[in-house]
Amino acid sequence: MVNQGDFLREMGFEIDFVRVDDSGLVDLEDLEKKLTPSTFLVSVMHANFEIGTIQPLKKVAELLGSRGILFHSDGAASCGRIPVNVKDLGVATMTISAHQFYGPKGAAALYVRKGVRLTPVIQGGYQEMGYRAGTENVPAIVGFGEAARLAAEEMEGRVQHLAALGQRLWDGIDGSINYLHFTGHPTERLPGHVSFWIEFVEGESLLLWLSLNGVASSSGSACSSNILAADEGGLKASHVLTAIGVPPEICHGSITFSLGKDNTMEEVEHVLSVMPGIVQKLRDMSPLYEEFKKREKGGQ
Amino acid sequence: MVNQGDFLREMGFEIDFVRVDDSGLVDLEDLEKKLTPSTFLVSVMHANFEIGTIQPLKKVAELLGSRGILFHSDGAASCGRIPVNVKDLGVATMTISAHQFYGPKGAAALYVRKGVRLTPVIQGGYQEMGYRAGTENVPAIVGFGEAARLAAEEMEGRVQHLAALGQRLWDGIDGSINYLHFTGHPTERLPGHVSFWIEFVEGESLLLWLSLNGVASSSGSACSSNILAADEGGLKASHVLTAIGVPPEICHGSITFSLGKDNTMEEVEHVLSVMPGIVQKLRDMSPLYEEFKKREKGGQ
Repeated sequence: MVNQGDFLREMGFEIDFVRVDDSGLVDLEDLEKKLTPSTFLVSVMHANFEIGTIQPLKKVAELLGSRGILFHSDGAASCGRIPVNVKDLGVATMTISAHQFYGPKGAAALYVRKGVRLTPVIQGGYQEMGYRAGTENVPAIVGFGEAARLAAEEMEGRVQHLAALGQRLWDGIDGSINYLHFTGHPTERLPGHVSFWIEFVEGESLLLWLSLNGVASSSGSACSSNILAADEGGLKASHVLTAIGVPPEICHGSITFSLGKDNTMEEVEHVLSVMPGIVQKLRDMSPLYEEFKKREKGGQ
Repeated sequence: MVNQGDFLREMGFEIDFVRVDDSGLVDLEDLEKKLTPSTFLVSVMHANFEIGTIQPLKKVAELLGSRGILFHSDGAASCGRIPVNVKDLGVATMTISAHQFYGPKGAAALYVRKGVRLTPVIQGGYQEMGYRAGTENVPAIVGFGEAARLAAEEMEGRVQHLAALGQRLWDGIDGSINYLHFTGHPTERLPGHVSFWIEFVEGESLLLWLSLNGVASSSGSACSSNILAADEGGLKASHVLTAIGVPPEICHGSITFSLGKDNTMEEVEHVLSVMPGIVQKLRDMSPLYEEFKKREKGGQ
């Protein structure tokens, strides 16, 4: 049992989930409808790893206005990738993870707006002003700081580079592979993030064949792609893809390319040169595709 | 509020603390008296950082016997310093920290006996078989493993080395400084661990003067030596020293030397060469000591 909602419910909290549209954007009307006088926390992630969509946090903050509701956002996918200004966005707290912007694993931060009072999750020592017990991982904290400094310094160049690479990847895939569906928002998305699913092609197979051709991609998120997740009734369909209306039988089949600052246009061209062939090969092995082709032929 | 007992009480648990004797050993009779039919967890730390005492975990396990009580031990101070065999000791779970035996900060382990079921403290992802959500710090985990391997391999030599250094430090201090009280158990203690308090000498001052002379020591534990701890009514008296009966006004005054595998006999001799002079200097500055000397003279 790792569902945060279930866990909090067990502790006596009431939890509600807000709807998203088919591009993954939070439905603000639905959010407003679900606020009650006892709502004390709203959490909306800033950007989504699987589909790249960036949420309109500022609008959420405006909606919450002065109702006295704590507004948290998970900035793990956004911080270091796009400019993030917690004051502009209006969040009270934001989670930030160092290894997402080339810092070391093992260090993360929680931005806390002045005046917000929190209870520590990890108890037992006075470290970090009493907010998190345990010996501080000083080298990782220093690395976090330096990686953040570099990310801020190089932000503009990184974003431009990623946007150009991402656009080329998107256009190239769009132009060479049919029955392909991009996921997430077409413009409100992380630069250099391209995600999609392809009819008649299993995501895991595509991922493995890409890997054999020197291309690293991902299928689902790191937090749920795991043998335990698989235990719970086969490989679980992604809750992100389910939420944006992707048919459950397809939810295993999505692929994410998340480019980084060190990727090059040559690498993008390599992906585009190998992918159509791999997709065709996998389709040729698919009985569903064969049936589909027969039906199409018959229909003509 | 960082007191684990208070936190658990707030969650609805009943907590009881078991007495220790003046050497810091757990009072087994008191433990037995405090067990109730609803007791489900007993936690006894293996060794104590502040006073070096090693607890008789095996006896605790025998006492708990087949009552179905989960037996946890904090092995942070013992693992890597003395041979630890969880099966021999009879613990169901044991906490282990890498940086205590020359591994990297940021990696720790929980030994869990087969069959013990746990609820994760950190929820939200399937990592580490669902027991702890969050991206794994792979480099630190690898470092933990290698440090553990080296500790096991070199255990005998390290223990002998530390025991010899610790004995010399103990004897040297004992022979050169009067009104000094060793803390912790004289024999059931970590090798290379020497702790004490000295009448008329403030621990913090001694620590600073030792530091100026190139000697690193500690006063209190890292988990409570902090500005926040200081906020709670001046520098808090150590709960460890209070528990073993050291007068509260002295509890700020204790010093711990925790030697490591790379310390040398020359370094120990250096400590012994500078300490008596520092102690004398600090005493000469103490009004309490002056008064004491006058009274002693008057009594003669």
